[in-house]
Formats: sequence, structure tokens, C-alpha cells
Amino acid sequence: MLTLNFANMMEEVIGPNGTNDKAIETLRAKTPEIHADIIGRKRNELEFMGLPDQDTAEVKKLGGEVRGESDAFLLLGIGGSALGPRAVLEALSPLHNLREVPKVFIYDNVDPRTLRHILSVVDLGKTTVNVISKSGSTAETAAGFMILWDEMKKAVGKDAARRFIATTDPASGNLRKIADDHGMRTLPIEKGIGGRYSVLSPVGLLLAEVIGVDSRELLRGAAEMRSRCSTDDIGKNPAYMFGGLLYLMNVNANRNVNVLIPYADGLKFLSEWFCQLWAESLGKDGKGMTPYPSVGTTDQHSQMQLWMEGPGDKVVTFIRVGEYGADYTIPRVFEEIEGTSYLSGHRLSELIKAEEESSELSLAKRGHPNMTIEVPSIDAYHLGELFQFFEIATAFTGLLMGINPFNQPGVEEGKNFTYGMMGKKGFDAKREEVEKARKDRAGRQA
Amino acid sequence: MLTLNFANMMEEVIGPNGTNDKAIETLRAKTPEIHADIIGRKRNELEFMGLPDQDTAEVKKLGGEVRGESDAFLLLGIGGSALGPRAVLEALSPLHNLREVPKVFIYDNVDPRTLRHILSVVDLGKTTVNVISKSGSTAETAAGFMILWDEMKKAVGKDAARRFIATTDPASGNLRKIADDHGMRTLPIEKGIGGRYSVLSPVGLLLAEVIGVDSRELLRGAAEMRSRCSTDDIGKNPAYMFGGLLYLMNVNANRNVNVLIPYADGLKFLSEWFCQLWAESLGKDGKGMTPYPSVGTTDQHSQMQLWMEGPGDKVVTFIRVGEYGADYTIPRVFEEIEGTSYLSGHRLSELIKAEEESSELSLAKRGHPNMTIEVPSIDAYHLGELFQFFEIATAFTGLLMGINPFNQPGVEEGKNFTYGMMGKKGFDAKREEVEKARKDRAGRQA
Repeated sequence: MLTLNFANMMEEVIGPNGTNDKAIETLRAKTPEIHADIIGRKRNELEFMGLPDQDTAEVKKLGGEVRGESDAFLLLGIGGSALGPRAVLEALSPLHNLREVPKVFIYDNVDPRTLRHILSVVDLGKTTVNVISKSGSTAETAAGFMILWDEMKKAVGKDAARRFIATTDPASGNLRKIADDHGMRTLPIEKGIGGRYSVLSPVGLLLAEVIGVDSRELLRGAAEMRSRCSTDDIGKNPAYMFGGLLYLMNVNANRNVNVLIPYADGLKFLSEWFCQLWAESLGKDGKGMTPYPSVGTTDQHSQMQLWMEGPGDKVVTFIRVGEYGADYTIPRVFEEIEGTSYLSGHRLSELIKAEEESSELSLAKRGHPNMTIEVPSIDAYHLGELFQFFEIATAFTGLLMGINPFNQPGVEEGKNFTYGMMGKKGFDAKREEVEKARKDRAGRQA
Repeated sequence: MLTLNFANMMEEVIGPNGTNDKAIETLRAKTPEIHADIIGRKRNELEFMGLPDQDTAEVKKLGGEVRGESDAFLLLGIGGSALGPRAVLEALSPLHNLREVPKVFIYDNVDPRTLRHILSVVDLGKTTVNVISKSGSTAETAAGFMILWDEMKKAVGKDAARRFIATTDPASGNLRKIADDHGMRTLPIEKGIGGRYSVLSPVGLLLAEVIGVDSRELLRGAAEMRSRCSTDDIGKNPAYMFGGLLYLMNVNANRNVNVLIPYADGLKFLSEWFCQLWAESLGKDGKGMTPYPSVGTTDQHSQMQLWMEGPGDKVVTFIRVGEYGADYTIPRVFEEIEGTSYLSGHRLSELIKAEEESSELSLAKRGHPNMTIEVPSIDAYHLGELFQFFEIATAFTGLLMGINPFNQPGVEEGKNFTYGMMGKKGFDAKREEVEKARKDRAGRQA
């Protein structure tokens, strides 16, 4: 069970930069109404709260088929359709492609160089392609899918459809139509599940099964967190407390950077997944904190200097790991060297934990607010807990901010310019706008 | 040759959030003095400006030896000792470990789980370990080195030393002493080269040679950039202009987040390398912008919403790539589907470039300052150019801010707490401080 320790957010510990019980009381007053929305799933997009209850039979069946018939699993998706699966992969199967079959590739871009390299190392005849897009109209995913479909037909002819699994809307959209027309296997992304809240849907669960992880464990952890967050008492609800404290630091103290630093290489992509969830949900109406993806101890040698002595514009959240599931004792070697002999006899896990705690304390001593999520170990159960925790926290924070945490209107403009340049019908004016801008801006160059 | 286009930083283009020629004139007045420092290498730490002139014979010799005798190359280092080499690896040899020998592993943490997995896939008898630490006293690198030394001795007995290359200070420090005592091969990190300015020293060059890249090409690109930056006319000096514009946006407009978004998967780790360079150099005295590592198109589906509609606290720098060195034509498939058929017939590189330009323009239309670095292609020459560009820009910006861009005093406190917890002599009081804090902070939990 994960716990949240927030002592280093409080003015009693870190001084005037901290918050206090009076401020937390102001949250307490606002919580019941928001809680009623979330727990009552009063918006369609809150359907993610129901994902822990889903039936995993179909995901397990398809996962088993992929494992039985494929040397490679190539996932096409972008944003939430890729970040969640990647977080599962990196957390639960480190160095996967050097140790396991099927190998996993996540193509979440339209970089031709990346695609060339992926296609140079896979045998398409033994590859399953999982196309993930709720609507099927995401340009990046569609482009990759069209190329892969063509390449697959060249490779295996009429059996091509059998090598695809489409994860998409159960009833409508381009990808649903293509999949049905060609007889591809499919998995559903239900109506109320938005991309960044979809990791515990078949979007993330199929990948889990493909790498040999029991997807029910992810859901079991998520259900446990949902149950802990079924109270409107913010003092007992870790997700609300996490979101609420960040809200206070943002609104009352103008802190606009929100760093997440797990002390585990395997959770680096959990950070990146969180950054999408947080940024796209809460960055609107001129509001929003920039979420920062970090990893310890590594970033102590990269970002820590800035956090310690830079401007007071950040809140840092540590993820502390209880058991790493592997360990080494630092041996008694080079004992003549004074500078390193103190390490001998300690376990490597002691060192990483000591560094984590040292970083918390150093920041606190300088008055920099920080908090710590402690997870007992890195496994499917606790990863499920973390996913659900951050999703509930993000939805709660958005509602507290008075914004809609489920839409992303700010990305439309860019899509329209792209449509214009790619010649989509009805977007000629956009293309002309790009061409004009190109001319107007040629002069400022160094 | 890379170029910097900064039209979208100007008020004439983006309106009142932009800067103007008058503000640039204020920089022009300050530039000659700073330029004299940099070009005259008036601080020891400016020695990185001399790296393009170094002799690469020894690096080439050792790189050839590694390629001849190893299936795996394991780099131990953290911060600048790892981020630079990783940027070289990811940019110049994508999917390296699935395509090439020797495989490359970069262990830049003390996560025992990561080390367990690396050691499970390498044959130590055919592995070269490159330990990188200028002083040799970096705790993380020392711990990994001690474990690897012990494991290597178990694996190959008295030949262990032959499987290590130490990249360290040429004359002093723990690692120098150990390497000399045991007869390990070594490469120098010269006195004036700080970790985060070391990628073009043997720190990054050995890895380049190991993966089959001519390290002289990196230096040739760097030399070209140095030569372009040998003018104190900021209008003609791309690195000064880049740093100067960020400085203006930070000081005059309170923008405290500095996003770098290359449109190429291979440059994702260039972003991470840059973030360390920028954060650790400039985050001090209560000043500093948070550098944000991003990659396009991927982060259009993650961060763009926040950049478009969130607070006006950012400057976004795009890296636009001319030629990707690979391409695909999006085929005419699924033509009955209206939502995607517009893509057919276009090349994938057209799509990624259209998206990059669309993102610039969308931000500019909303009044969000952004600029674009254009690189002709992703190869050693242009990567060298980029490294040198960012290093000069960072040094220049620090001197403009009136801070020392070469130290990192803020990380000492955390090191001392860790020493205390690990039982290093003389740090008992620090251990007690940690233990006291642990007790005092137990109550705030959810």
C-alpha cells in the first residue's frame, strides 16, 4: 500500500514557504462537492474510475495469442496510447528486448528514421501490430498504421489482417471501421475513457499480458487505491491530499513547476506518463503547473543544483521504493583509498535510499516544499495503485481549479495547420497562413 | 551548419509578449566584455573551448581495442559523465543494442535492479567497463565500480584490470590512483573540463569510437560552431543570441521554463543532456530557468496543451531536422476512409516537418515566444555543432546573469547527509540530523 508523507510541505517543518493546517481546512470545505462528482462519476470522462472492475478475459486471450505467435509486438499510438503502455513495460520488465520474447517496440512518433530502424530488426511475419487510437483519426498513428499495413501485406499477403490488433472505440470511428472491414482482432476503449486516463483499459493491459504480467494485478492495486480514495476526508485520502497540496502551492505561492522524482530507473516512464496526465489535464485557462519528469539518483547530478539554489518556483515529489527485488553488497576493495572505503559493506539499496532521504532533507532545510510517496516495491499491484492515485489526484485538482480536466482544446490549432499543409480538404486557408508566416519570418536568423 | 531563427521571439511577430530590437541592443552593450572572457578562456573552466583541437589518437586506439575484444561496453558514470555519452549513442546509433556489437550499457544510477538486469545479459569476460569520474570520489560511480571490479575478478581473475578503462583526471584523484596501481588503461579529463562541459572530451569521444563513429567528425562540427561564435556581434553569433534571448525572457518577462523540443527521437537525450548543462550551470543565487526535455511530435500529445493554454511562463525552442536519412511514402490504403486518406502520397518526413512548423506557428499566434534551431541532418558533425552551441550559450548566459556557470555548490548538503548515513568518518552529526528529522516528520501521512 502506498503512503504519502507531506511533513516537508508544512510551515512547521520548512518555515514560511510551507503551508499550514488552516490552508488545508480551506480544501476540506471544498472537497465534499468535488468528491460527490468523482465518486458518483457525474461526468462521462470519470468512467476511468470503473476500470478496476473490468473483465480481463479478452485481453488475456489476445495476450496469450500474441505470446504464442509473435517474436515482436509493435505498438502504434501516441500520447496516452503510448505513455501508459511504456510505463508498464519499463517498470515491470527492464531491459525487456535483451531478455524476453516477444520483443516490444512502441512507435509513438512519425520519425522516419526510427521506423526504418524498427523495421530493420523485426520479422513482420512474426510481428503483431497493436494500433491504438480511440477515434482512428490521430494523424501520427494513422500514418504509421497505413505504412505498416502496406508493409505487412508485402510480407504476408492475405494474412495481413491476422497480424493486427486494433484497440479502439467499440462502435464508431475510422479504426473501428477498418478493423471490422478487414476482420482484425479488436479490443475496446469505452466511450468515457480519455487517452490519458486509459492505461488501465485494454490500452495498457494488453501490453502487460504480452510481457507476461497478470493484468488483474494492475487492476487489483488500482481497486485498492480507489477504495482508499472513497472518503471525502482529505486527511485520509492520499490522492486528494497530493492534489490539494499542489493546488495550494500553485495558487497561494505561485509555484508553477511540479517535479516527480522516483528513485528507480524503472519508474522514469511513470514520470513521463504522469507529465502528460497532469499537463494536458490541467494546463488551460491560463492556469497549470509544468510537471517535470525526473529520476533519482541520476538527476541529483543534473537538476538538484537548480532545485536547491534556483528560484522558489517548484514542488518536488519523491517516490521512495521499499524493496528493489535485487541487491548487491558493495565489496571491500580498494581499501587503501580513503575517499571510497566508507562504502564497503553497505548494500547498494542502502545507498540509493540514503540518497533519496538526503535529498528530501536538503530541500526541506532550505525551505523548499517537497513530499514523498512511498511504495513497498515495483510490481504490477503497486504500479496499478500509482496509476489510480495520480489519475484521481489529477481529476480532483482540475475540479478544484475550476477547469475541465478531461479536454484538450489547445491542440486543435496545430492539427489544423498540419491538415492544411498535408492537403486535407477544407483546410486550404490554413496552408496559406503557414506559407505567409514562412515568408514573413525569414529575416531573423543567426 | 545549424541556424537559429528567432522571428517568433519578437513583438513585431507575436505581439506584446515578444522582445524587440531595443532590448537586444541592451545585450549588445554587455556582450564584448563577456566575449573577451570566453574567447580568451579567462577562467580555467572555459577550457572546453579548446576541446575541438584535441588529438584523438588515443581515443581511437582504445575505441578500436574495445570493438575488437568486447561484446559489451558498460559505462559507469553519472551526470555529465553519462548524459553526454548517452546523447551521442541515441542520436547516432538508434536501437543500437538490437543491431550492433559491442552492445552499450550506461549505468548512471545506484538502482540495484538495473544492475542486476545488466549483469544478467552481459558476459563479463567479453565486456569492457569504462569508469568515468574526474575525481573518482563520486559515490554512485564508485559504488558501481567497486561492485564491477569484484564481479570482474570473479569472472576473469587476474585479467580483470585489462577489462577496465578509467576516464579521469590525468594526475590526481582516487580513480587515477586505482587505475595506475592496477595497470588499467586510462583516458584523461583535463583540469579545466567540468562534467557537464565534457561531452567532447574522451568522456563522449570514446563511446563514439566504440559505436563506430569517427570522433573527429564531432570535433569538426564543434570547431565550426566555435569559429562562428568567435564574434562579439550578437546578431551574428547564434549561441549568444540564443542565450541572450532566453535571458531577456527570464529577466524582463519572468518566464522561468525553457523547453527544448527536437523533432527527432534520436535527439531526446540531447534534450536531457542540455537540461543538465543548463540547470546545473544557471540554477543558483535564486536565479535560473527550469530547462524542460521534450521531443516532437510525441509531446504535442502530452505537453502542447499546457504550452498553448497554460500560464505564459515558458519559452519553447524547436529543433527542426532537414534530412532524416530515411523515409516512407504513406501508401494509398484505406481510401474509403475519409478521415485519413489525405495522408496518402505524402512522405512521413513531410508529416513530421509539417507538424513541427504547425506547432511553431500555433504558439506564435497565441503570443507564446519560441525559436527554432535548424540542423541539416543528424550525424556526428551536426551533433558536435549542437554540443558546442549549447555549451557556449550556457556559459554566455551565466556570465550575463552575473553568476558562475561552472560550479554546483547546492549539491553538497545532500552529499553530506548521505556520507553521514553511510558512516563516512567525520559525518556523524549529519547522520544524527537525518535520524532526528525522520522522527519529527512521521506524523503527516495520508
